[in-house]
Amino acid sequence: MATPVFLLSDFGLADPFVGIMKAMILRLSPESPIVDLTHHVPACDVRHGALALEDSLPWLPAGAVVCAVVDPGVGTARSAVVVLTQSRWLVGPDNGLLAPVASADPAARFWRLRPGGVIRPDRSATFHGRDVFAPAAALLAAGNSPESIADPIPALVPLALPVAQPTADGVRLVILARDHFGNLTLNVRRHELPGLLPAESSRLVLLAAERRLEGLRRTFADVPPGEPVFYWNSADRLELAVHGGNAGRTLGLAPGDEVLLTTA
Amino acid sequence: MATPVFLLSDFGLADPFVGIMKAMILRLSPESPIVDLTHHVPACDVRHGALALEDSLPWLPAGAVVCAVVDPGVGTARSAVVVLTQSRWLVGPDNGLLAPVASADPAARFWRLRPGGVIRPDRSATFHGRDVFAPAAALLAAGNSPESIADPIPALVPLALPVAQPTADGVRLVILARDHFGNLTLNVRRHELPGLLPAESSRLVLLAAERRLEGLRRTFADVPPGEPVFYWNSADRLELAVHGGNAGRTLGLAPGDEVLLTTA
Amino acid sequence: MATPVFLLSDFGLADPFVGIMKAMILRLSPESPIVDLTHHVPACDVRHGALALEDSLPWLPAGAVVCAVVDPGVGTARSAVVVLTQSRWLVGPDNGLLAPVASADPAARFWRLRPGGVIRPDRSATFHGRDVFAPAAALLAAGNSPESIADPIPALVPLALPVAQPTADGVRLVILARDHFGNLTLNVRRHELPGLLPAESSRLVLLAAERRLEGLRRTFADVPPGEPVFYWNSADRLELAVHGGNAGRTLGLAPGDEVLLTTA
Repeated sequence: MATPVFLLSDFGLADPFVGIMKAMILRLSPESPIVDLTHHVPACDVRHGALALEDSLPWLPAGAVVCAVVDPGVGTARSAVVVLTQSRWLVGPDNGLLAPVASADPAARFWRLRPGGVIRPDRSATFHGRDVFAPAAALLAAGNSPESIADPIPALVPLALPVAQPTADGVRLVILARDHFGNLTLNVRRHELPGLLPAESSRLVLLAAERRLEGLRRTFADVPPGEPVFYWNSADRLELAVHGGNAGRTLGLAPGDEVLLTTA
Repeated sequence: MATPVFLLSDFGLADPFVGIMKAMILRLSPESPIVDLTHHVPACDVRHGALALEDSLPWLPAGAVVCAVVDPGVGTARSAVVVLTQSRWLVGPDNGLLAPVASADPAARFWRLRPGGVIRPDRSATFHGRDVFAPAAALLAAGNSPESIADPIPALVPLALPVAQPTADGVRLVILARDHFGNLTLNVRRHELPGLLPAESSRLVLLAAERRLEGLRRTFADVPPGEPVFYWNSADRLELAVHGGNAGRTLGLAPGDEVLLTTA
Repeated sequence: MATPVFLLSDFGLADPFVGIMKAMILRLSPESPIVDLTHHVPACDVRHGALALEDSLPWLPAGAVVCAVVDPGVGTARSAVVVLTQSRWLVGPDNGLLAPVASADPAARFWRLRPGGVIRPDRSATFHGRDVFAPAAALLAAGNSPESIADPIPALVPLALPVAQPTADGVRLVILARDHFGNLTLNVRRHELPGLLPAESSRLVLLAAERRLEGLRRTFADVPPGEPVFYWNSADRLELAVHGGNAGRTLGLAPGDEVLLTTA
């Protein structure tokens, strides 16, 4: 198989931006399958993009290349980087977008794209997805070494993420994202909970929007239709949903809002 | 050609769900072209998904695999099934989604995915698109037999669809769906009409939203711009449109609303 | 590499229309990569589609085929055409959609699809994307000559585009489109400006929505966050944006609105 290239951006699909990036990839790596992760990251929301990337990476084929562009600093001095982490290659701006997936792998390696090569003098100042990132991703997918286009650097710009806050009453959590179904993702992962709030699943209680939810469940269908429920989602993040409904809308909650996880 | 895999779901494109399913397919069937039918089936609307599938299937290459996921019962006891119908393979939940395309072929065959194989003990409880359906579709596309992952069953769970109702005044029809252009699809197909209301096209009259439309036309451009019109759509369903406009918005009609087909 | 096929339409992604077109392409040209430019051209907006095509074409691989369908006249007497321009093939309705990319190349050639072949007697009256344009594009991608399906014609139906209007005060411009980020594209290109308003970049002034913007910049990040800015976009069109914001929403401007470009 030719190396596949996965794309993630905040470009949306209303304009031909994504199609033009794919054209650039086909020109340099004609046999690569090209797959969209999502292009509906909220505009300029680097943190949202970083989380979507974190949820996706473990499922991609080893050796795959990801071209990730959420880049409010396009045209400024921010770097464009290549990352090798968890056996996959990533290309994107050095603004925190790639930091969480890199920090998950102590052996991750980093390069900065150098002027010349894909950083051409005649590049545009507003569309580095087309002019820098897509060509870099395609060159890696076609088998070129990172050194052929980039120089090693020791680390990436980090990303500040809200951490779960232990309090006298339990653990204060923040809603990170709302998905297509209105499900609300919280900022604690399955392996982190025992260190924060050791308790059996059935004794966990979530206080959210003046509702009291008793017991961590396995899936939304474990409660009656229309009822709220919390469970570990498919990326092992704590998630709040309404069975057959839209939790964001029903509970009036949005990214940034807080909830409290405690015990009965 | 490697066997293509077609995807249909209610996952939307705002999250990386669909991209992750494609990654799973590439891992097991690296040469398969992967094509989206649509991922904008309204959330949990099995009937809408079933109709979209019915309109698509006849146009897919023979031997193609369809992975269809509109699955409000994910994580419950509902089965995951494989269907061979009209020379194409389908994988999805056994909740009615695949029933109309299967019932169109008296020689259709059915299998139920068995525990072990793609139904792994460590699968998630909320994302069988990634953990069950995409791998099953990829294995079929890669040439594996249905028996390698599933056991024969005699039939699928059926889907209840509203049928055209003959009345003293004509035939009472229901709006099944509203498409991107606002065109409204009705629940009668071209081959069914002679048995319900035998009449020449020019004598058919549609009573909808207090409007009286005279004569079945060939296409929306057969009436002046801004005027409503009805015709057989490209899937041979009766459809109500406004030339150059949005019938749903202009006429104030939505799926579930009724209209009357009669004769002059 | 097999010849890729690029798609552009106003079909949206809510229905399986685009997936069905891709199925038709795979049946006739199984090895062709298929890439979406965009399917979110506003319904029936031929001019918007023509501009999206103009911005995309220079970046596509030489020899690529584009299947472009914004076709309010489907089912009427309008022609279906093949165009060879700028080393790429295009297929679409002869309604102005393909005219701007064709007029950019004095050596462009034109053919009209003839009855028989892809214009089958049993085609639908409302979905020529599936029945005419996708098959024609696939046949070209598979290496068939245009003469095998079409006859030469001397020219296309032209497209009327609003031109920049020199006035006593400067140049009156019109907003052509608003992109996903709310950036507003104006109807003047980089190479046209010296003939309209010869001035240094720093002396150019844009009067828009009762705001006075001093100096053409290189990118939106050249002004403070929240401030409006104008620059040459990645397709060398003049563009009006708000740094980190949505210019259409912030300034209350939409396609069709006018602004004035003048000098300090």
